[in-house]
Amino acid sequence: MLQAYFARGMTDTAVFELFVRKLPPGRNFLVAAGLEQALDFVEGLRFGEEELGWIRDCGLFRPDFAERLAALRFTGDIHAMPEGTVLFPNEPLLRVTAPMPQAQLLETRLLNLVHFQTLVASKAVRCRLAAGGRGLIDFGLRRSHGAEAGLLAARASYLAGFDGSSTALAAPRFGIPVFGTMAHSFVQAHDSEAAAFEAFASVFPDNAVLLVDTYDTVEGVRRAATAGRSFRIKGVRLDSGDLLALSKQARHILDGAGLRDAIIFASGNLDEDRVAELIAAGAPIDSFGVGTSLVTSADQPYLDAVYKLQEYAGRARRKRSAGKATWPGRKQVFRHYAADGRFARDVVTLESDARTGEPLLVPVVQNGRRLASPSLASIRERTLSQLERLPAALRGLQAAAPGYAVEISPALEALAAEVDRATA
Amino acid sequence: MLQAYFARGMTDTAVFELFVRKLPPGRNFLVAAGLEQALDFVEGLRFGEEELGWIRDCGLFRPDFAERLAALRFTGDIHAMPEGTVLFPNEPLLRVTAPMPQAQLLETRLLNLVHFQTLVASKAVRCRLAAGGRGLIDFGLRRSHGAEAGLLAARASYLAGFDGSSTALAAPRFGIPVFGTMAHSFVQAHDSEAAAFEAFASVFPDNAVLLVDTYDTVEGVRRAATAGRSFRIKGVRLDSGDLLALSKQARHILDGAGLRDAIIFASGNLDEDRVAELIAAGAPIDSFGVGTSLVTSADQPYLDAVYKLQEYAGRARRKRSAGKATWPGRKQVFRHYAADGRFARDVVTLESDARTGEPLLVPVVQNGRRLASPSLASIRERTLSQLERLPAALRGLQAAAPGYAVEISPALEALAAEVDRATA
Repeated sequence: MLQAYFARGMTDTAVFELFVRKLPPGRNFLVAAGLEQALDFVEGLRFGEEELGWIRDCGLFRPDFAERLAALRFTGDIHAMPEGTVLFPNEPLLRVTAPMPQAQLLETRLLNLVHFQTLVASKAVRCRLAAGGRGLIDFGLRRSHGAEAGLLAARASYLAGFDGSSTALAAPRFGIPVFGTMAHSFVQAHDSEAAAFEAFASVFPDNAVLLVDTYDTVEGVRRAATAGRSFRIKGVRLDSGDLLALSKQARHILDGAGLRDAIIFASGNLDEDRVAELIAAGAPIDSFGVGTSLVTSADQPYLDAVYKLQEYAGRARRKRSAGKATWPGRKQVFRHYAADGRFARDVVTLESDARTGEPLLVPVVQNGRRLASPSLASIRERTLSQLERLPAALRGLQAAAPGYAVEISPALEALAAEVDRATA
Repeated sequence: MLQAYFARGMTDTAVFELFVRKLPPGRNFLVAAGLEQALDFVEGLRFGEEELGWIRDCGLFRPDFAERLAALRFTGDIHAMPEGTVLFPNEPLLRVTAPMPQAQLLETRLLNLVHFQTLVASKAVRCRLAAGGRGLIDFGLRRSHGAEAGLLAARASYLAGFDGSSTALAAPRFGIPVFGTMAHSFVQAHDSEAAAFEAFASVFPDNAVLLVDTYDTVEGVRRAATAGRSFRIKGVRLDSGDLLALSKQARHILDGAGLRDAIIFASGNLDEDRVAELIAAGAPIDSFGVGTSLVTSADQPYLDAVYKLQEYAGRARRKRSAGKATWPGRKQVFRHYAADGRFARDVVTLESDARTGEPLLVPVVQNGRRLASPSLASIRERTLSQLERLPAALRGLQAAAPGYAVEISPALEALAAEVDRATA
C-alpha cells in the first residue's frame, strides 16, 4: 500500500485516529496506556540496512521503494489522551496528522503497542477497584504472550494501580518495584519443608515470604511460624486450595505464634472477581499476586481497537462497512464534570467545533518533535485520581446500565452525512 | 531463589519438566511449538553488563551474586518433543537436566516462549482442520500482545498449517510467505472507489486483492470486476457483513465478468468456528484471513502450562498442592499406533521404564551443546502429517468424549507413592 502511495504521489496530509469501537462485555470503561512506547517508536522510526536489504531483494517491491523508505522519518503531529485517562468507545485516544505514507506506516505498531497496554491497564484497574487498598503484584510473565508483553504488562498494570511486579526487568527499565517470593521447587529441593524455610529466611532476613502449600498448607503455615521464631519473616504465601478458609487458619496460626506483622500473600488463578469475593467474605489476605488473567486479560484478551483514516488532503473521509462505520474528520473529546468533581458526560466532536468541557486530546508530538512526557509515577497518580472521579455505577465489576453518556455532536453527524453524499 | 541456591551450595543436578496440566474446554489436543526459540534462549544465556550492573546496585542481592551470574552458562541436557508433535495433558513436552541454578533460571522464559507458541499452534491447527485445503493467512499483528507475540504467532500459525502471514518481518526472519491486501484507508484516500482500485491494480499487476467493502460491498465487487477488465487482478476481499451471502454474490459477479480465476478472500472477526460454518454453508471463499482470534487464542488465551521440579540430587520430587499435584521423576511419553497408523494411546512413564511404543521426547541439547534442529518447512510437514494420524473423533472442533487415552504407568504411580511417604 505504501508503495502504491509513493508510486502515485499520494503524500498529502492524512489524519488517522486510534479508537476502540465498543466496550468488551461486562466492562464500563477503559484506561489509556502505551503512549510512551508508541512515541518511542515514532521517534525512532527508520528502516535499518538489514530491513532495506530484504525489501530490495525479496522481489515483492519496485527498485526505488527501498530508497523511499530509507529516507522516511516521522515529521508530523500527534495528539493523544495522557496515559491513565479513563476513556470510552468511539473516543479517539490518539490522532496522527502527517504525510500519508508516514501516517499509514505507523498503523500496525501503534495499534500493537497502544492496544495491548490499554487492554492490560483496563483489566488492572478492575483488580485495583476490587482490592481496595490491599497489595496487588503482577505475577504474569511466564504466561504473557512473549517477552515484550510481559514487560509492558508490568508497566501497564503498575500505572493502573498495581504495587509492583515479579518481572525483574521492570525495575531497571521502568523503576517499578519488583517482588519475589519462592517457588515450590525450592521447597521440593530441600529434604524437608522446614529446612527449605530456614534456608530461605536465613538468606533473606526480614524479607522472606514463605510458600506454604507444597505439601499440606496448614502444616506449612505451622512450619513457617516455627521458622519465624528463629528468623524474622515477612509472611507466608498461599497458592492453592480454599484461600478463604486457609487464609483464616494461617492468620490464626501466625497470630498465635506472635507473628502479627507477618503478612498473608495469596496467588493461584486469581482475577478481579476472585479478589472481590475473597475480600467480601472476610479473607485476611494482605496482598494478591495476579498473573495469567491480568497479563492476557483472560476474559477479554483483545479490544476492538482500530486506526482509521478520517481526513486526507483536506477532505474528511469515512468508511461505511457494515458494523464498522466511522465518524469522519479531526476530532476532540470534551469531558464534563458534575458538581462533586465526578465525570458527568463526554462529547465527541470536531476539533474545529468550539465546545466547553475539558479537551482530552493534547499535543504530544509537533512537527516530528516529541514534547515532554509525564513520569510513570505521575501517570499512576493520574489513573488513581481518575478512578476517584468515576461515577459510582461505573466502579463496579459488572456492566452498569445505561453506562456512561458519550454524545456524538450534531456537527459530527452533519459532517458524516455530507461525506456520505460526496462518496455515494 | 537463585541467590539462596548459590548461598547454600545447592548446585546438584535438577530435573524440571514443562507440561500442560489440563486441556482448555472444548479442545482435544495441543501442538508443541516454540522449541527453536527456547533453544536460542538457552544457547545465548548470559547476563550482560547492564543487567549485572543493576543486580550489583539495586540493593536486593548479596555482593557476590552478580559474579555468580556473570559466569553462568547452560551446561546441561534438554529433551523435548519435536515441534509440531500432537500432545496431551500431563505429557512433558520438554525436560531440563542441569545444575539447579541453571535449570531454575530457565523457568520463566522457557515457559513464556513454549507456552505462547504452543497456544497459538494449538489454535491454528483448529483453523486448518476447519478450512480443509483452503487458504489461511495470519492477519493478527496489530492486536497481538506486543511485537514478539506478533512475530512468533506468524511462526506458530505457519508451522501449524497456515499458508502465510501479513507480518512482513516473518519473511526475512523465518522464510514465511507474506501476504498483503489493501486497507480501507487506501480506498478512502482516493476520490472514488474505482480510482482506488485502478491505482492499486496498476501498481501490483497480477497480484492485487481489492478490498470491496468500504462503502457498499456489492457495488465494490462490480467496480473490482470493472477494474479487472483493464488490469489483471488476483481477487477481491470481503471484510464485513454477511460473508456467506456476499461471497456468493461476489462469485456470481466475478464469473459473469469472465474473472473465474479471481479469488475471494474473506476476513473480519473470523475464527475456526466461523470458517467451518461458512464452508459448511457453501460459501465460495478461497482464502481466509484470521487475525485477533488466532494471535490471542481469544477463546482460550492461555494454557495451564507449568515447569516443575521432578528430581533433585538423584531423588525424585513431587508437589502435592490441592489440584496441582505433579508426577515425580524423569519421564518419557510412549505413543502407540493403531493398525491404520493413527494414534491409539499414550503412556507416560519413567525414562528408566523399558516400554514399547514411540518415545516422543528426544535429546535436543547435550552438555550445553545444541543438536541439529529441523527446518520450519519440515516442522510444518510434521504437523500436517500428525493431523492426518489423529483419531477421527479428535479432529472435530468440539471436545470428544471420552477423549484420547493417556495412561499413567504403574511405575510412575509407585514412585509417587514412595515420594509421598518420604516427604510425609
